[in-house]
Amino acid sequence: MDIKKSNMNTLFNPKSVAVIGASGKKDKLGFHVMKSLTRGGFSGTIVPINPGIIEIMSLKTFPSILEYPHEIDLAIVVLPAAMVPAIFEECLKKGVKAIVLITAGFKEIDDPGGAELHKHLADIVHRSRVPVIGPNTFGMINLHSSLNASFTPEFSLLKKGGIGLVSQSGGMCHLISFLALRDEIGFSKIVGIGNRLNVDFAQMVDHLMQDPDTNVIAMYMEGIDNPKELITTAKTYGGKKPIVAYKTGLGEIGNRASHSHTGSIAGRGEVYSGAFGQAGILTVNSVEDLLDTAKALSVVPPMKGSSVAILSSQAGPGIAAADICQMSNLDIGSFSDETQNTINEILPPLALRTNPVDMGPAWYNSEALVGIVDAVMQDENIEGVLLFMMFASANVDSIKGLSFLLKNPKQKKPLITCLSAPPGIWDEQIKQFEKANILVNFPTPERAARVMVNLNRWRKAGRIV
Amino acid sequence: MDIKKSNMNTLFNPKSVAVIGASGKKDKLGFHVMKSLTRGGFSGTIVPINPGIIEIMSLKTFPSILEYPHEIDLAIVVLPAAMVPAIFEECLKKGVKAIVLITAGFKEIDDPGGAELHKHLADIVHRSRVPVIGPNTFGMINLHSSLNASFTPEFSLLKKGGIGLVSQSGGMCHLISFLALRDEIGFSKIVGIGNRLNVDFAQMVDHLMQDPDTNVIAMYMEGIDNPKELITTAKTYGGKKPIVAYKTGLGEIGNRASHSHTGSIAGRGEVYSGAFGQAGILTVNSVEDLLDTAKALSVVPPMKGSSVAILSSQAGPGIAAADICQMSNLDIGSFSDETQNTINEILPPLALRTNPVDMGPAWYNSEALVGIVDAVMQDENIEGVLLFMMFASANVDSIKGLSFLLKNPKQKKPLITCLSAPPGIWDEQIKQFEKANILVNFPTPERAARVMVNLNRWRKAGRIV
Repeated sequence: MDIKKSNMNTLFNPKSVAVIGASGKKDKLGFHVMKSLTRGGFSGTIVPINPGIIEIMSLKTFPSILEYPHEIDLAIVVLPAAMVPAIFEECLKKGVKAIVLITAGFKEIDDPGGAELHKHLADIVHRSRVPVIGPNTFGMINLHSSLNASFTPEFSLLKKGGIGLVSQSGGMCHLISFLALRDEIGFSKIVGIGNRLNVDFAQMVDHLMQDPDTNVIAMYMEGIDNPKELITTAKTYGGKKPIVAYKTGLGEIGNRASHSHTGSIAGRGEVYSGAFGQAGILTVNSVEDLLDTAKALSVVPPMKGSSVAILSSQAGPGIAAADICQMSNLDIGSFSDETQNTINEILPPLALRTNPVDMGPAWYNSEALVGIVDAVMQDENIEGVLLFMMFASANVDSIKGLSFLLKNPKQKKPLITCLSAPPGIWDEQIKQFEKANILVNFPTPERAARVMVNLNRWRKAGRIV
Repeated sequence: MDIKKSNMNTLFNPKSVAVIGASGKKDKLGFHVMKSLTRGGFSGTIVPINPGIIEIMSLKTFPSILEYPHEIDLAIVVLPAAMVPAIFEECLKKGVKAIVLITAGFKEIDDPGGAELHKHLADIVHRSRVPVIGPNTFGMINLHSSLNASFTPEFSLLKKGGIGLVSQSGGMCHLISFLALRDEIGFSKIVGIGNRLNVDFAQMVDHLMQDPDTNVIAMYMEGIDNPKELITTAKTYGGKKPIVAYKTGLGEIGNRASHSHTGSIAGRGEVYSGAFGQAGILTVNSVEDLLDTAKALSVVPPMKGSSVAILSSQAGPGIAAADICQMSNLDIGSFSDETQNTINEILPPLALRTNPVDMGPAWYNSEALVGIVDAVMQDENIEGVLLFMMFASANVDSIKGLSFLLKNPKQKKPLITCLSAPPGIWDEQIKQFEKANILVNFPTPERAARVMVNLNRWRKAGRIV
């Protein structure tokens, strides 16, 4: 799938965008695409194309892209499938650099005509090496250029950040984004590759690896037409940026449904998991796992070893996390003598003072907690720290104690936490800590522990050069 | 552990409560217990006991429980461990019916004196068959009597509901409650059994099985002193109410930490899981799993078979759910001819119209969605329905279509959903549906599917009579 590199850049950073099939009617996707573009803060030119209308959303509308007198970088096409080949010819004649093809009804339909049409489109764009996102996609979003080339304006509410999300499913992309909105997780680009005319996972990995706004690549996939191409591409970059992949369609029924969905064979999970691992692609098992892991990888420093500390203000969460670490080859390491002495001074012999530390006897003593966390964060025997603290009326101020971490924003090891309180009590402070990148917080100790496991898996998988 | 049944009732429904160790100082737990009791809406008498003070929180304070002139049903003890035996003697002399012993420092400490003290207390209460919650607990809450006998006033913010939560870990109980607060999940009772002087899981199961306010029992456990007693008790009730158990302390380190935490041996997971299954106790693997499953079991009708339908407005979430169902022995069943005909009329041949149904081609056609959901909900071949719908600008009104379900609030099969949208868009409608018990919503399709798997496991595990 030969596409021009400069065209990929223009795809995500166009100066002018035409919406072919723009509409002023709410029951048309062309209306929602116009809404996304016009309300998303895009500073370039937006050109609605529709032969039947003079103006859409106060923008002058042209009957065809060819009649627009200036250059068009990106064309978003949202017309019935049968009209698309002719539209593509017009786009290329116009010299567009990239296309987002929202229209469905090609390879994924039972009718062999769909596959033929798909092939026909591929042939058309092949000549000019123009990248096409889709068909059968909601579109794509570049948050760093405020370009929302999708039919869902709400994607523009997302925070700018380092995660580049590439998804074969629009539904999953929407879901992941809504979860991210609630948790204020930031993205660089969100791309629904749909039925992949010529931009598949491999092309997106190639692009995002070179994209300065992206530091983690998250992928949701059902089937891949050319897994070797993806694996080769990932290997080329030798662990330059983490890639996390969630693959479904593993069972027979899901596989069949996946085929119907995006016109590709899904195949067995283990096969991918093994091959992906060798290419430095981390596999995960749910959308939450994908988002949790990408969230952490986009902000924390890399782990340098597999030795973690578990510090818990209440014993239970620490025990749950210890189970997960032990089952997943994370070492619950020994502290240095210095750290151990500090902890022994702070905590009475009443509880477990070795790793995992039950800080229970000091759970409402903020100074004691800070002393332990500080010592362990500095301990060179420990490469990652899991910290759990559940609110109670008596320890409400303990969260403030953690502010000492703000003094050293360039901390050298991941601090993964589950700090939990009733709504409105600790939310602001946790957000402040997360914004300063001194910790990454998760709703449960198990999810925090699984993230730490994945950071360690990435440490190993990333060393593929 | 012989305790009087009527005393167990009084424990949760006292007319008068004494707080022995009540305090007006914020750095004392006795202050927070007083806050919980006085602000939780408890309508009975609250009697602070503290020899050094005249009044706490505008309540007349007595130097000892014996000097209070009227009856005391429940004593909450929050004094140093060494003072507790004498206080217990006073409580029994006074004729209290139940005790919550918040104080820590008994069996769980390394010092053998702790275990002796524990045994001594057990002997004292044994005579009068008074139930003791604790020691080493945050306390307990009966939401239906607005009794917050804990040191965390925020438990009173929880909704009244059918889940009875029994936990060996205070931290986990707090965490589960905070998650429940965000999701408005209701509880009957929340009990931190701590180090279990004479009220262990078995006693709580026995009580909650007969408690009219409780319809699901959720347990978090690390170790059990007497697993046989719990299993026998659960079996006695022969699946009368679902019991869901989350057990940690499975790995060697977690096990050791657990021993230190609550003074019992944790032991291997598989052993419990097998024995629990035979007693109709459903085991789960995380706090989210525990809460998700309990939430569903507390409101949905029981499944009558293992055949489920997966209906997804966007294909991806349906594929992810199909994987989980297939891996977990849920049947993705065939529709009746009538249902299949209805779906074939509604959907074009473009997508998968058999189960799992990809409603993609109709994703922004509310009427089509309603037609499919209605047909499948009525299909006698299907015993549970998973429904997924992700918001997009074009389908914003689809959620309203689901209101037709409100017309038939006594629906006969579980409807488990993942309806997801940016914050503030569908929240109110989803809440309305959940309040009417017509569906149970989860943040991801995987969590929804795992809940359906657990409903089916409960269907099988519950048939133990």
